[in-house]
Amino acid sequence: MRMRPEIESLPNSPIVEVANYGRGRPGLIPLWFGEGDVPAPGFVADACDRAVREGHVFYTWQRGLPELRQALSDYTARIHGATAAVDRITVVGSGMHGIMITMQALAGPGDEIAVVAPVWPNVFAAIRIVGAEPRQVPLAMDERGWTLDLDRLFAACGPRTRAIFLNSPGNPTGWTIGRDDLGRILDFARARGIWVISDEVYARVTFTGRPAPSILELAEPEDQVIVVNSFSKTWAMTGWRIGWLTAPAAMGPHFEKLVQFSNSGVPGFVQMAGLAAVEQGEPFVADMVERCRRGRDVVCDALEGLPRLRLVRPDAAFYAFFAVEGERDSVSLAKALIDRTGVGLAPGAAFGEAGEGYLRLCFASSPERLAEAMDRLVPALR
Amino acid sequence: MRMRPEIESLPNSPIVEVANYGRGRPGLIPLWFGEGDVPAPGFVADACDRAVREGHVFYTWQRGLPELRQALSDYTARIHGATAAVDRITVVGSGMHGIMITMQALAGPGDEIAVVAPVWPNVFAAIRIVGAEPRQVPLAMDERGWTLDLDRLFAACGPRTRAIFLNSPGNPTGWTIGRDDLGRILDFARARGIWVISDEVYARVTFTGRPAPSILELAEPEDQVIVVNSFSKTWAMTGWRIGWLTAPAAMGPHFEKLVQFSNSGVPGFVQMAGLAAVEQGEPFVADMVERCRRGRDVVCDALEGLPRLRLVRPDAAFYAFFAVEGERDSVSLAKALIDRTGVGLAPGAAFGEAGEGYLRLCFASSPERLAEAMDRLVPALR
Repeated sequence: MRMRPEIESLPNSPIVEVANYGRGRPGLIPLWFGEGDVPAPGFVADACDRAVREGHVFYTWQRGLPELRQALSDYTARIHGATAAVDRITVVGSGMHGIMITMQALAGPGDEIAVVAPVWPNVFAAIRIVGAEPRQVPLAMDERGWTLDLDRLFAACGPRTRAIFLNSPGNPTGWTIGRDDLGRILDFARARGIWVISDEVYARVTFTGRPAPSILELAEPEDQVIVVNSFSKTWAMTGWRIGWLTAPAAMGPHFEKLVQFSNSGVPGFVQMAGLAAVEQGEPFVADMVERCRRGRDVVCDALEGLPRLRLVRPDAAFYAFFAVEGERDSVSLAKALIDRTGVGLAPGAAFGEAGEGYLRLCFASSPERLAEAMDRLVPALR
Repeated sequence: MRMRPEIESLPNSPIVEVANYGRGRPGLIPLWFGEGDVPAPGFVADACDRAVREGHVFYTWQRGLPELRQALSDYTARIHGATAAVDRITVVGSGMHGIMITMQALAGPGDEIAVVAPVWPNVFAAIRIVGAEPRQVPLAMDERGWTLDLDRLFAACGPRTRAIFLNSPGNPTGWTIGRDDLGRILDFARARGIWVISDEVYARVTFTGRPAPSILELAEPEDQVIVVNSFSKTWAMTGWRIGWLTAPAAMGPHFEKLVQFSNSGVPGFVQMAGLAAVEQGEPFVADMVERCRRGRDVVCDALEGLPRLRLVRPDAAFYAFFAVEGERDSVSLAKALIDRTGVGLAPGAAFGEAGEGYLRLCFASSPERLAEAMDRLVPALR
C-alpha cells in the first residue's frame, strides 16, 4: 500500500497494546482509559430524544447552534469570569476534533509545536498527521507535585515553532498551571508571534473547590490563543462526541471551513443534549467531582505508603500517575500487573518520553470498585 | 493571525455565498443544498433513543461497532453482489469525514489527486487541506448526458498523482460511470500503482431500477481502492453524521488511528440508529427513490422545453444541473433568480471550473413544492 510515510509511521498506542493484552479477562478491573463509569444525567438523554423528534436531524450550523454557542459564552463568564463572545466559539465533534482542526489551521511540514509533557498521546499524533513535529518539554516531579520550568519551555521555542500546547489540568499528571505562569507564557507567545493552544477539558475536575485557571481569564480577545474544551469529562459525555473551541473571532471563518471539510458539524440533537448539560448540569458536575475526589483518596491512601512508588496526590483531573522504583518498561509492567492482579492500568510510555517508568490509573470510578482494585494492586507493588 | 497559507486561502463556498444572500427571505423555496426534506424513518429515532438508554454513551470502537460493520458487509453483498469482509470496513463520521481521513492517509504536499468534475466542492477542499493539489478532469455534456473521456483522465495522471477521485453517481451531474469504464480505470490504477477513491453515496438514488455499479463489484480485496459511503442520502440521515469506508484490510490499522485522532469514533447510539437503517430501511429507500423520481420529472418536465437551457434528465442522484445560454456567472445568476423568483439554487461555479455557467437544483423535495418552484422559475428562465 502506497501511503504517506507520516501516517504509516504513526505509533501504535501503548494503551491500546496493554488493553488488547488484557481485554476480556474474567474479573478484570480496567482503569486504563480516561473515562468514568457513570453516564450523563437522564435529562441529557431526554433532550437528545426530544431534539430528534423535533427535527434536529438535518444539516446544521457548521460552527454550532446559535443557542448552544450563546450558552457556552455564558458558561465561560459564569465559571471563569472571562468574556468569550459568541463569535469566538465553535462547536466541534470532541476536544480531539478541535485539536485536529487547530493543527490543520496552524501547522504543516517544517513547523514545530512545543508540547508540555507527559500529556495524552493523541496530541503528538495530531501534530504528526499534519506533517509538523512535536517538541516535548518535560514537567518535573518532586514531593510537591509536577512543575513546569518556564525557561525550559521558552528555550524549546525556536524559529519553526508555531504554537505552545498546554494541557492543564493535565492528563495524565493532574499538573495545574498557575495564573502567573499562564501570564508569562502569554507574554512570551505575544512577543514571538506564536499561538498558545490550551487544552482545558479538566478545568472543572478539581479538588480545590474552584475551577482551574483558564487562559481566557488573562488573554485579550484578539490574542493568538485557542482554548480546547469538551463535554466528555465535565458532563460525562465521552461517547457523545462534542466539544468546543474558543479562539479569536478572526479564526471563525477558517474554523467554519475546517469543520465543513472534516465532520460538517455536530449532529443537531447531540448539540441540544449538550445545551441541556450546560444549562442544567451543575449539580451533576458537583456530584461527579465529589465522586472523583473520593476515588482519588481511596487510591492515594492505598498507594502513598508503598516505598517503591513515587506519587503525589493530584489536585485535579482523575488520574493517579506514579512511578515504580526499578521499573523502566511501563508496557511490560502494565502487562505483568494484568497477569498478577487483574487490574488494567495505562503505561506511562504512552504519554511521551517523560512518562516512561510511570503508570496511569483512572480513579473516575466507584470507591468500592477502586478499593477492590487497591486490594489487588498493593501487594504486587509493595 | 499567523496561519497555514493553505487554510487561509481556502475558497469560500459559492453555495454558502448565495444561501447567505437569500436566507430568511419570506416565501423563499431553498433548493440549494443536497438534502431532502423528509427525516429518517421513526424506527431510526427509536433505535437511537433505545441505545442511549441502554448505555451506548461511552467511548466506542474506533472502526465501528462490530454488529454495524457486519451489517454493512452484508449490505454490500446484498446490494452490489460484492464481497467486502468486515475487516475492510471502517465506520466514519460521514462521507466527508471518510474523504478527509483518506486524503490524510494518501496525500500531502507535492502530491496530486485527479478529480473528475464537476463535483461537490468539499472534495477539492479536503485535498487542499492536506497540502496536495486537485487536478480537475472535466466531464463533457452532450444530448445524451455527461460523459467521461478516459484518455483525458489518464493523461491527467502524472508522476505526482496519488489517486483518482470518482463520484458516481455524481453530485451535481448525476453522471454514472459504467462497469466497463470502471474496469479500465481500475486496470490503469493498478498499472500505475495509484489509488482509486470512489465516492458512491448516491449509488441507491437511481431511476433505472437498479443500484449504480460499485467499483467493489470489480476490485480485488487488496486493490488500492477506497469506497466512500454515507447514510445521509440513502436513509435521509444527513444530520446524523455517519458513513463508512471500504478499503483493503491492510488499511484498517491506519484508519483506526486516523479515526482516533480526528473524531475518536461515531457515537455508539448514532451507530445503533444506523444499524436499524441498514437492517430495516429498504422500504424507506424505495419510497425515497420514488419521491425523487417524481421530483425529477416535475422539474425536468418544466425545464426541458426552455430553449435557453441545456439540461439532460438525470438517471441518478437528486439534482438537475443545467446551463443557461448567455450566462457565464452562475453566482450572479443565482442571486438574480432569488431576487426575481424567490427560488434558491446552487451556482455551478461551486463545483469546479467545468461547472461555471450551470445551476444546481435539488429535487429531493415534495412534488407540490417543486411545482410551485417551477411556476416561479420557468418565466424567469424563458
